[in-house]
Amino acid sequence: MPKIVDHDERRREVLSAASRVIVRDGIDAATTRAIAKEAGYSNGVLAHYFADKDEILLSALRGSHRRIRDRLTGKVAGLTGLAALREVLLDNLPLDDERAAETRLEVSFWSRSLAAERLAEVQRAEAGELRAAVRELLGQAREAGELAMDDDLDDVAERLLALMDGLSLRLLLHPDRLSRDDVERLMLQTLERL
Amino acid sequence: MPKIVDHDERRREVLSAASRVIVRDGIDAATTRAIAKEAGYSNGVLAHYFADKDEILLSALRGSHRRIRDRLTGKVAGLTGLAALREVLLDNLPLDDERAAETRLEVSFWSRSLAAERLAEVQRAEAGELRAAVRELLGQAREAGELAMDDDLDDVAERLLALMDGLSLRLLLHPDRLSRDDVERLMLQTLERL
Repeated sequence: MPKIVDHDERRREVLSAASRVIVRDGIDAATTRAIAKEAGYSNGVLAHYFADKDEILLSALRGSHRRIRDRLTGKVAGLTGLAALREVLLDNLPLDDERAAETRLEVSFWSRSLAAERLAEVQRAEAGELRAAVRELLGQAREAGELAMDDDLDDVAERLLALMDGLSLRLLLHPDRLSRDDVERLMLQTLERL
Repeated sequence: MPKIVDHDERRREVLSAASRVIVRDGIDAATTRAIAKEAGYSNGVLAHYFADKDEILLSALRGSHRRIRDRLTGKVAGLTGLAALREVLLDNLPLDDERAAETRLEVSFWSRSLAAERLAEVQRAEAGELRAAVRELLGQAREAGELAMDDDLDDVAERLLALMDGLSLRLLLHPDRLSRDDVERLMLQTLERL
């Protein structure tokens, strides 16, 4: 009897292996060979599921974003305006091990996107969704009278997202200077002053 | 008569070639072979000047930081407090082609540092200098009565540096959404509210 292969399951295993290699050894080290070894498959099996290394990396990034969205959907259920915005921004900071791994994956893609237009396009599309969500919640917050400042909300959204990216990066690069509590506090301070 | 070799000049040429390769093709592509080719030297000549790829990359990063410091020293001459802080933070944003290349180099090192402790140590030391300078200028600004807010100045320094990193990154990744003028405006808005 032929072995029954669950193709979706195999793809998930490969992507999970790719994420582990990137987070542990860096995106430079995530060759198709290294990913195959981590997943316990041959290079040939990998080639059956993914056209090239970039397709594996992109699928891993999209998978990570999907998991973040699913988790976040639970956290903001029933919330609107500033309360929902707080959850969105805090959830995107590397405040626990799971989110630290997600952020390491994200930072790895930043530099790679600068040299690879195909990766950059995907990253722009995904970042666009998050920006739209933040902008929408700021609009709700203003409608509800929760904002003291009368700044242009597109500007506020950009500043908050830049702060989120910068704090995420600095927590990963400077664990000697910044703790997770520090980074959470710095983001909350900023939200209190909106 | 033996050819006279200017070793410092050769080292500079190699580092300049390394920076060009990283900025143009990404840090993954900056192999010793690619750097040698760009510089017009053999791999053997490169090996004479640098122990390995990481030493080339670190020297390129340090050289870039030295040029930034030299340029900045001119810009802040005679300035103190908030006026000097404005120059420091704007100078670190990719607001022209020269600084865009510097920022691409920086972003490339972020992800590589996450997987290479030796690079991370150098980056922490260099980032520590910038943080100390920003904190010092904030202290001068408060002494001079230039700050409206009574926040802890270490927190303010961290928020400003995180915003600087985040805006730099977002300008490089999302040139379709953000212009150099936008990023300059967003940073100045933040400084006006200190």
